[in-house]
Amino acid sequence: MYDYGQYGSELKKNIRDYWWESMTRLHDNIVGIDAAIFMHPTTWKASGHVDNFSDPMIDNKDSQKRYRVDHLIETYADELEAMGKKEEADTLLSAMDRLLAASDFEGLKKLIEDNKIKCGMSGTANWSDVRQFNLMFSTQLGSVTDETNEIWLRPETAQGIFVNFQNVQKTGRMKVPFGIAQVGKAFRNEIVARQFIFRMREFEQMEMQYFIKPGTQKEWYEYWKHDRMQWHLSLGISSDKFRFHDHVKLAHYADAATDIEFEFPMGFKEVEGIQSRTDFDLKNHQEYSRKKLTYFDTELNQHYLPYVIETSIGLDRTVLMILSEAYLEEDLSTAEKKDSRVVLKFPSKLAPVKLAILPLIKKDGLPEIAREILGSCRAHFRCFYEEKDTIGKRYRRMDAIGTPFCVTVDHQSLEDQTATIRYRDSMQQERIPISRIREIVEKEIF
Amino acid sequence: MYDYGQYGSELKKNIRDYWWESMTRLHDNIVGIDAAIFMHPTTWKASGHVDNFSDPMIDNKDSQKRYRVDHLIETYADELEAMGKKEEADTLLSAMDRLLAASDFEGLKKLIEDNKIKCGMSGTANWSDVRQFNLMFSTQLGSVTDETNEIWLRPETAQGIFVNFQNVQKTGRMKVPFGIAQVGKAFRNEIVARQFIFRMREFEQMEMQYFIKPGTQKEWYEYWKHDRMQWHLSLGISSDKFRFHDHVKLAHYADAATDIEFEFPMGFKEVEGIQSRTDFDLKNHQEYSRKKLTYFDTELNQHYLPYVIETSIGLDRTVLMILSEAYLEEDLSTAEKKDSRVVLKFPSKLAPVKLAILPLIKKDGLPEIAREILGSCRAHFRCFYEEKDTIGKRYRRMDAIGTPFCVTVDHQSLEDQTATIRYRDSMQQERIPISRIREIVEKEIF
Repeated sequence: MYDYGQYGSELKKNIRDYWWESMTRLHDNIVGIDAAIFMHPTTWKASGHVDNFSDPMIDNKDSQKRYRVDHLIETYADELEAMGKKEEADTLLSAMDRLLAASDFEGLKKLIEDNKIKCGMSGTANWSDVRQFNLMFSTQLGSVTDETNEIWLRPETAQGIFVNFQNVQKTGRMKVPFGIAQVGKAFRNEIVARQFIFRMREFEQMEMQYFIKPGTQKEWYEYWKHDRMQWHLSLGISSDKFRFHDHVKLAHYADAATDIEFEFPMGFKEVEGIQSRTDFDLKNHQEYSRKKLTYFDTELNQHYLPYVIETSIGLDRTVLMILSEAYLEEDLSTAEKKDSRVVLKFPSKLAPVKLAILPLIKKDGLPEIAREILGSCRAHFRCFYEEKDTIGKRYRRMDAIGTPFCVTVDHQSLEDQTATIRYRDSMQQERIPISRIREIVEKEIF
Repeated sequence: MYDYGQYGSELKKNIRDYWWESMTRLHDNIVGIDAAIFMHPTTWKASGHVDNFSDPMIDNKDSQKRYRVDHLIETYADELEAMGKKEEADTLLSAMDRLLAASDFEGLKKLIEDNKIKCGMSGTANWSDVRQFNLMFSTQLGSVTDETNEIWLRPETAQGIFVNFQNVQKTGRMKVPFGIAQVGKAFRNEIVARQFIFRMREFEQMEMQYFIKPGTQKEWYEYWKHDRMQWHLSLGISSDKFRFHDHVKLAHYADAATDIEFEFPMGFKEVEGIQSRTDFDLKNHQEYSRKKLTYFDTELNQHYLPYVIETSIGLDRTVLMILSEAYLEEDLSTAEKKDSRVVLKFPSKLAPVKLAILPLIKKDGLPEIAREILGSCRAHFRCFYEEKDTIGKRYRRMDAIGTPFCVTVDHQSLEDQTATIRYRDSMQQERIPISRIREIVEKEIF
């Protein structure tokens, strides 16, 4: 897990708010909720997480080190390939895939032993049986420590939406189709958390469940594929950085699924998933809670369990996407002088700081004018005020945190109430009336 | 723990954003961070939570029921008092206070036994020893289950700020005095969670640590007492609903502490705490991490560990405060007719929905005009659109969720591009040009 500092936390908040507003405020018939991280334990039986949200693991008895079975075998296959034994590696991997698909744990153990795969630490092949390891974090609720009080930290936010479906529908008199959105922390005890904030054990999800009439799932699935891709493009990222990765092998609860992948520095990776989940979730919650979750459709004069289209995006991954896309090292060299800058070209609405206000020198009444500008703008958007160092250095520091606008107050400002605005991306400067600063920035950020 | 529905989640988000903006955007030298819920386990040794964040508990061996020792004794004292034995009850309670202060667990057990206090379930006095029960939730990180992987869910957000103090100070070139703010979930395994969202096991805190020069703590403590009270008053709540409750008995880490208490329907209760914490926290983190956390003061040319003033407010409690204050049942009876309404008189900036847009009838082009108004406003603030039922019913529904403005579109709107705006609190109606709607609402909500 990672902590976000003063600019990272603003960037993350701006992305979260942008998603939230586009989902709930700009869509008819989508509302938000904020459900707890601790949910009733039966939720996770109904959702299938207690039984299925796990990876097969194996322990080396000498080193006590635990491995994910697929990682252990894949690492060995890589070694084989490096030794020129590509065919042997391929045979091994396809045997593994077959056994994993069949959940044949004895077969997997035998595969490891037959290939004499060894533990990197102990160097031995003294292996335990293969067992399932659940990825949910568990804790004990209440003061009495018996098993009935075991609860889990939610591994996804979606279930908070399903269990609130009927509350929201009835109290809000919502009509199908309608959606419920939620942002919040989720937790997965990943064996290998990696690639910076791409895969963490504690992370933030932004999910939306859209409840629809059975039979309309194809059309709504296509609608949300399109809508969510448009959202990504609205961040100013070019479309060739994105692709859909349609799932061929579908999870047991889905009748269609795709990932929106973004081209990170480490390759195309999933940022968001869109799934057509049928009535799998509501049906299971209905069964486990023994409460009817059907919806009465007044137009059809008919009760049914709605189908669901889900859009699920990782907030931390989106932060990483925006950072990857924004980061540039620009060569500014001229014939006379070598020069360069590091700049984060964030979309203005996501930038942590919108406007830097920089008096040219620390005296002569310039800080006073600059502070007046600050006073008139800070109630509306985030500003940064600085008197120290040369203007050039101050500009570069603002480039490095992605501030789209800087205004400089100089002696002429005293005379004619103008200031110089400098644009981050073009580095162009322009003389403008101080009274127009707020309007120029606001036009770009809302 | 509780889930927040479609309007509750908006109210909570609006309060959270209002706090965040007033803390970070409107104060010079305060920045925000967003630290993880899972922190390094040593953090909680340094903070004192591993050793001290606990309550003494006792088990009845027959019923297996566990009690908080103070609750068990207090309940018994209440019974004594109800039987007219007030003096006996007082003696018991002062004995308990003395033993609790001395952490004398054997003495507490003896006190329970001597008074023949019985378990309500088994009716016996067959008690276990008194033991400390830590209020932190623990879980296991990683796949190998040995003790070294035990981690806790943070019981407060403050420690995320202390451990990031130096990162923020150095990367942001912050100068003392400066503050770091954070909003986030915290978790406490309370024995008794009660009073709706007032005391929950999963809750949200909004904390700010202000780092200052040692010796200036009195003045900054007074500053923050005043500043935070002003924040509460800025929500439009009258000052006689608030009081300070200064702590006489101070915690070991504080040299001054006060609570801002609000008069809830169940009496005056703490909403926010303000503490002068000296260098207790940074000193301990410095010791346990073995990393210097001193600050170099360029004006004094001197290194020191900053002192800290903390402001800590419960977000869920603030929601409850705002709800308690806003809820009104108004008698609207006239000589002719009995009438009443339920209204939530939220400050406009906190209201979940800002504007309801209501075409008088479902045809004749009125919905089209209403949709145009929606289109011009929804990018700027949250709107609600409804065609169903009489205008009177629609107004009342908006009163009940606290929507400050309703506009009604009628046939005259088609002719002169005006609409009727209706104000929630006064219930006054006014004819205004449609083009002015956005401006009227925005004036009240930003």
